[in-house]
Amino acid sequence: MVLVYVGDVYKMKTNYIAIAAITLDGKIAKGKNHMSDWTSPEDKVFMRALLAKCDVVIVGNNTYKTAIKPLSKRNCIVFSRSVNKPVRKSGNLLFINPNKTNTKKLIGKLGHRNIAILGGAQTYTYCLENEMLDELYLTVEPIVFGQGIVLFTSSKDLNRTFQLVSMEKLNEQGTLLLKYKH
Amino acid sequence: MVLVYVGDVYKMKTNYIAIAAITLDGKIAKGKNHMSDWTSPEDKVFMRALLAKCDVVIVGNNTYKTAIKPLSKRNCIVFSRSVNKPVRKSGNLLFINPNKTNTKKLIGKLGHRNIAILGGAQTYTYCLENEMLDELYLTVEPIVFGQGIVLFTSSKDLNRTFQLVSMEKLNEQGTLLLKYKH
Repeated sequence: MVLVYVGDVYKMKTNYIAIAAITLDGKIAKGKNHMSDWTSPEDKVFMRALLAKCDVVIVGNNTYKTAIKPLSKRNCIVFSRSVNKPVRKSGNLLFINPNKTNTKKLIGKLGHRNIAILGGAQTYTYCLENEMLDELYLTVEPIVFGQGIVLFTSSKDLNRTFQLVSMEKLNEQGTLLLKYKH
Repeated sequence: MVLVYVGDVYKMKTNYIAIAAITLDGKIAKGKNHMSDWTSPEDKVFMRALLAKCDVVIVGNNTYKTAIKPLSKRNCIVFSRSVNKPVRKSGNLLFINPNKTNTKKLIGKLGHRNIAILGGAQTYTYCLENEMLDELYLTVEPIVFGQGIVLFTSSKDLNRTFQLVSMEKLNEQGTLLLKYKH
């Protein structure tokens, strides 16, 4: 958690943390319904440890559908075009339409500080475009699908630069964990 | 150079080395005419040193057009749909249509051993699909364009696995040089 001086008060800064596993050529999945079960066991261990430190998870509706069970245990915000205003489906499950709700303001109001963004591509891209991406953890698996969905698919020319914070080789095959900050 | 036992003779194995600079999300360029001038100085130094060890460079026609001057000093094979059979344009410049010529056989005949593949996406993908990719050097720049051309664009489900051989941080910002072998 980071304290930031804003005017005459210190505010707790929210920290948007995107987490993604990618192939060495930047694909996050083969297709829309391809689950993240292709990643190495070491990535899953890292992911669980990082998620334990986060207050809430943001996912798109497609990603949510492929992982309802594991996500059911977590505080979860689902981005969806199917709702006009925020809809609380259960105690820890909130659906919002990011094009119709001020997401950052709502997250601030809810008191979330460490927010994990878990995809898919549209959600990663929305967060990139809307300055909701302070840290980026990339697990680079040494594989090439040939085809698939890329991490960011913006139609804008963003030229966003990052700083590499750390790199770690997770296993013998050479799965890499890269941490970047914006 | 590697000696491989084939039947009752030892043959010198050709070594296909793909070299690419990518954004952290796997884009090689913003668009068709976007030159590779966005990469860090450290990448250019590495690239020149590696190319000095290669006998010949393979590029696609679009990539060739964006880099005619630097490529003019090198032994160069240009992949192009505009020719039916191999056309030698000058002493060190050969145009071939990989869909109409047995590329591997021709390269063997020409005596090339270390072949540098410099892109673009169609050429990288052709080499990936046709087992012409023994080593892959990726320079990962800590930048996101938002949009752009991806490294591999195969329509096939390849699931090709690699082994990370080495990784090196090239500068303070965190440009990474990753070497993979297939």
